[in-house]
Amino acid sequence: MPELSLRGVFAPTLTPVNADLTIDIPAYFEFCNRLLAGGCHGLVLFGTNSEATSFSAGERMAAVDAVIEAGIAPEKLVVGSGAASFTEAVELTRHAVQAGCRGVLTLPPFYYPNVSAEGLFRSFAAICDRVNDDRLRMYFYHIPQVSGVPLSPALVARLAEAFPGQAAGVKDSSGDLENLLRLHEVAQRFPGFAIFCGTEAHLLQNLRGGGGGCISGMANVLPHVIRDLYDNWQAPDADERQNRANGIRSAIVASGHNMIASLKVIVADQTGRPAWSRVRPPLVELTGAERTQLLAALRAAQPPAV
Amino acid sequence: MPELSLRGVFAPTLTPVNADLTIDIPAYFEFCNRLLAGGCHGLVLFGTNSEATSFSAGERMAAVDAVIEAGIAPEKLVVGSGAASFTEAVELTRHAVQAGCRGVLTLPPFYYPNVSAEGLFRSFAAICDRVNDDRLRMYFYHIPQVSGVPLSPALVARLAEAFPGQAAGVKDSSGDLENLLRLHEVAQRFPGFAIFCGTEAHLLQNLRGGGGGCISGMANVLPHVIRDLYDNWQAPDADERQNRANGIRSAIVASGHNMIASLKVIVADQTGRPAWSRVRPPLVELTGAERTQLLAALRAAQPPAV
Repeated sequence: MPELSLRGVFAPTLTPVNADLTIDIPAYFEFCNRLLAGGCHGLVLFGTNSEATSFSAGERMAAVDAVIEAGIAPEKLVVGSGAASFTEAVELTRHAVQAGCRGVLTLPPFYYPNVSAEGLFRSFAAICDRVNDDRLRMYFYHIPQVSGVPLSPALVARLAEAFPGQAAGVKDSSGDLENLLRLHEVAQRFPGFAIFCGTEAHLLQNLRGGGGGCISGMANVLPHVIRDLYDNWQAPDADERQNRANGIRSAIVASGHNMIASLKVIVADQTGRPAWSRVRPPLVELTGAERTQLLAALRAAQPPAV
Repeated sequence: MPELSLRGVFAPTLTPVNADLTIDIPAYFEFCNRLLAGGCHGLVLFGTNSEATSFSAGERMAAVDAVIEAGIAPEKLVVGSGAASFTEAVELTRHAVQAGCRGVLTLPPFYYPNVSAEGLFRSFAAICDRVNDDRLRMYFYHIPQVSGVPLSPALVARLAEAFPGQAAGVKDSSGDLENLLRLHEVAQRFPGFAIFCGTEAHLLQNLRGGGGGCISGMANVLPHVIRDLYDNWQAPDADERQNRANGIRSAIVASGHNMIASLKVIVADQTGRPAWSRVRPPLVELTGAERTQLLAALRAAQPPAV
């Protein structure tokens, strides 16, 4: 089997903010280290769980620079580089490539719904053509329930064909297992093309199908649990480990609050820093009662291990 | 009746692009003049029909500066200032206010679906608070079928109450007449608050309900027809004029192609400049056959008058 362009457990890193909603860089750097020490193979800075689109391109690039300068190795980093305009996506992508990051995770332009596959192809092609750098490793980001803009397996295959090597993989956050399996078929045609699932609930199935791993919001709060599952995917009790991880996820999901705000509450609890609960608008932080309920549900699903 | 903050027929101005997809500034300036001479009371630069979100904030601000410098009076301009991040929206809004523009048309943050009314309120409030300029006149932009993020009449009322004067009105592009009527009720509570419809098909009903006018994509190609309707809304044959305008719109809509690409084809035809047909990805220009069909349908609905 050819080596994949990327493998492992990645956290779409939550972004801590100060009272004025600017990024809290010291807390951000500390959290990056915490996740890497906790089991993540790498980090995705400015994915959906990072509230990426709630920050301007300038804020995003400055934060990436800051954590690299503080000592996070750029080869541990994949950077979200999608934007509504391809010109902004070019800027974000070029910046990540030139900073030596391992790759970029790229949303389609997400304002207009019902755009054609041809239009989406041209959007991604405009980024690759203009960045024009052999070091580019782009992961296409399929999260239709949020972006409103699905990337079909046929479009992914067309991109992989047009930009060999640079089109490096897909993150499938649809939660649709059928789609993940179709992407495995696409990947078989392109050596090194890596499929990531957006939920660790599909991690075993993804690895068994030849995928690279997961980029899961839950890795922000349970990196060790997901890493353990990843490391033991061929162990006899792998399904049992998957079920244990699923149980914890279910407890969080069943609480019914916004997932990003919920994950930040859990990090606030784990780190003892209440400021971690802050989110940027349009998200809203959990109320005190919601926090209490969420943390109780989580403790019932798993004794605190961190 | 108190004077409204804004009245008239406005074109969400189409944005001409060069072969490299940068904005063709001379053609843009020429088109702004053409629309103002053709009957528009003013222009909305960088609305949905302008492909606003397909350009970076920097490109948008530079283009606004360029047409003002070339001679378009800023008091004729409302500038689209919405963005996925409030920090970018603050930058765009501040720029328009400082340039002396008449107002801003502001989308809600449009990445995350299903955000709460509280989160949307905080997003708009963050813009108004940070721009912190008495000259600000903000028009809230309700276009849920594109943005995925509706602005309820209750939210609009809360904003009008919180930012008197600065919260200056709404553009309702939902095409939902019931919603327009609910907004008229909101406007009655806030002197000067101006309701605009996004389709000239509702222009008479909007004016009869006390609204300010329309900001309609169709004004890019039929400014004289819509202006004529606006000027004669109290004439005995006003409904007949509305029906005539509706007939032309129906011919374009019935062609079934993307509306923005279609409007650009019509401008290419009207101006004799084929380059006008270009769009930015993720949109795709019409094929030759589609153009022929569209223009024939339009001619059948109305003899060329421009």
